[in-house]
Amino acid sequence: MNLRAVAERLDISVERLERMLGRVVRSSDWPEPQQLRFDKAVSGIEAGTVIFDENDIVYGYPKIRRAMMLAPAIKRHFSDGVLIEEKMNGHNVRVASVKGKTIALTRGGFICPYSTEVANDQIPPELFKDNPDIVLCGEMVGPKNPYVPKEVYPAESMDFYLFDVSRKGKRDIEGSSKTHALADEYEMRSVHLFGEFGLDEAAEEIKEIIKDLGRRGREGVVIKDPANLKSPIKYTSSESNCRDLEFAFRHYNDYGQDFFFSRVVREGFQATEWSEAEAQFEERCLRLGKSMLGPMRETVEAKIAGELIVQEVEIKVKDLKTAADFEEHFRRMGVRAIFDSPQACPGGYLVKIKRLVMSTNDKTESVIKGQLW
Amino acid sequence: MNLRAVAERLDISVERLERMLGRVVRSSDWPEPQQLRFDKAVSGIEAGTVIFDENDIVYGYPKIRRAMMLAPAIKRHFSDGVLIEEKMNGHNVRVASVKGKTIALTRGGFICPYSTEVANDQIPPELFKDNPDIVLCGEMVGPKNPYVPKEVYPAESMDFYLFDVSRKGKRDIEGSSKTHALADEYEMRSVHLFGEFGLDEAAEEIKEIIKDLGRRGREGVVIKDPANLKSPIKYTSSESNCRDLEFAFRHYNDYGQDFFFSRVVREGFQATEWSEAEAQFEERCLRLGKSMLGPMRETVEAKIAGELIVQEVEIKVKDLKTAADFEEHFRRMGVRAIFDSPQACPGGYLVKIKRLVMSTNDKTESVIKGQLW
Repeated sequence: MNLRAVAERLDISVERLERMLGRVVRSSDWPEPQQLRFDKAVSGIEAGTVIFDENDIVYGYPKIRRAMMLAPAIKRHFSDGVLIEEKMNGHNVRVASVKGKTIALTRGGFICPYSTEVANDQIPPELFKDNPDIVLCGEMVGPKNPYVPKEVYPAESMDFYLFDVSRKGKRDIEGSSKTHALADEYEMRSVHLFGEFGLDEAAEEIKEIIKDLGRRGREGVVIKDPANLKSPIKYTSSESNCRDLEFAFRHYNDYGQDFFFSRVVREGFQATEWSEAEAQFEERCLRLGKSMLGPMRETVEAKIAGELIVQEVEIKVKDLKTAADFEEHFRRMGVRAIFDSPQACPGGYLVKIKRLVMSTNDKTESVIKGQLW
Repeated sequence: MNLRAVAERLDISVERLERMLGRVVRSSDWPEPQQLRFDKAVSGIEAGTVIFDENDIVYGYPKIRRAMMLAPAIKRHFSDGVLIEEKMNGHNVRVASVKGKTIALTRGGFICPYSTEVANDQIPPELFKDNPDIVLCGEMVGPKNPYVPKEVYPAESMDFYLFDVSRKGKRDIEGSSKTHALADEYEMRSVHLFGEFGLDEAAEEIKEIIKDLGRRGREGVVIKDPANLKSPIKYTSSESNCRDLEFAFRHYNDYGQDFFFSRVVREGFQATEWSEAEAQFEERCLRLGKSMLGPMRETVEAKIAGELIVQEVEIKVKDLKTAADFEEHFRRMGVRAIFDSPQACPGGYLVKIKRLVMSTNDKTESVIKGQLW
């Protein structure tokens, strides 16, 4: 890799890039092709940015900020109406064609072998032939998503939904209309577009959309500027916040405390903005309390029954090599997991994976044996 | 102050003590007498340790660890039965006679002028004449407690309840029987002693005590070794955990996130250990959810109504100088507060205090104006 040429494209000095190597910038040659990955944001370069060479730079997907109170946030942030798209609950990937191969990068910039297989399967090769510098930003969702398994989507294993389009070497996103036009042209799935709303009606419309999404087990929305002049913002349903908590409290000692706190605070603002009647408010309080204590109780009971506390997920691969590569990928990301032997199934192989949550396992074990806090 | 003599008593070198001065060990001459205060635990010396001179060293009150699951914790920690005392909800002080004056030290080792006035009023002077080296460890509780105001105790303003006895220059506590004997002898209040229980029955007895305390708005218990050979442990009611959360979520952005998390986790373990019926469990979940969202909603609504978010507390002093000194004490502790003018009342003066919670105030203000998270 020509570091000087790369540094020039990144608009930093080659000395600075060299100093970052091995620190915030990690080098890897697995899986191929060889790459540099930005572990953290630095010098205005997003975390998750991946460099294959000076002509193949895929910038990190920008962080989408969150509205805590819809109505004032929309009025402050947008100037000319909004587009509302569904925010799906899976993992964010960027798919690009690099040195003749279609690869899928995780948010953090790792090449995920499993997401790569799905991308190759679901994205028509002509798309990259016609647009060699395109970067497809989308959500991988479904019950066989090993990062965020969800049964609520009409996917049998894991599907790719396009939500943004960018270009190699470019930091910006091309906007909602281009995204959906591209998806239509190549007959790909894209996230649902609810429509365009005026600034005065948007908060009330989103409230109804969010309530409906919540009831259906979906996550929330991304609010975009129709002319793509403002950065998007996100907003989620109470049910989704609570399901996050449910998932996290099952493994209460393996999650950051800000994960819990931020979700409770979202509920507090939503309850206030929506001026709920007392019955709805009590329902929300009960949902919140249950989402924390229910799964935690199950974990403690499982440990008392002598079980190992694990997160069970599964993947469905077409190729056995993908399963083996995915195991190596988890190992490199520092995830401790036990992979069962692949089981043949229609269309490929099913692999059950147990992610170890050792901190919760050990903490629970010690508390039930009488250790003090 | 003779630093060499002090260092010898602390069992550290004088050079080490000198190096700590101005860093972990803070010097102060207000209020008198002059003192050194350990800001943090170091070299086995508890945080909150205060040194007036080599003969007047008051060690910090040791941290009491918490049982998360009662039955296994009691069996693991104690060997020969337990004493159960009430844990009251106020602020922990150590009272000693130093250079002819009775002074009350906060947990952190500050001389609190208001606690000192209450101690002088409620502790018979003969006690210190008869026991010049005694250190009385107790809880200051009541509605006029400016740190932790509570209406649930039979106190008109703020009362001192003895819970442990120590000696100057000594790190250890003398045990429950001496504490209660001393309180009886000098006709002082002491924390309620529920009795002595065998190891097999203790967890079940405590459960009943805790449930009753919870219903009455009280905090919990401290479990002690009858022979004072093991360190005490504490355990609290669900209602008390939730009231803590209620208080904290009213000012959600001014509290550490571990404050929230630890209380939710306590609820999870208690619900599991007590194998509650579903109706009780739902009641607990609702209580937990409400304790977070209820006060937070009130805070956001208050801010929308244009109010300044503050914590209102009050003190009742006999002497106007105590009020002025307490204001200076808060200022030195870094607490930002607005003190109203003292109002004469039967037996002294009432002073209303507004503690500023600027982080919550500013965060809430910005969110209702549409700022993103």
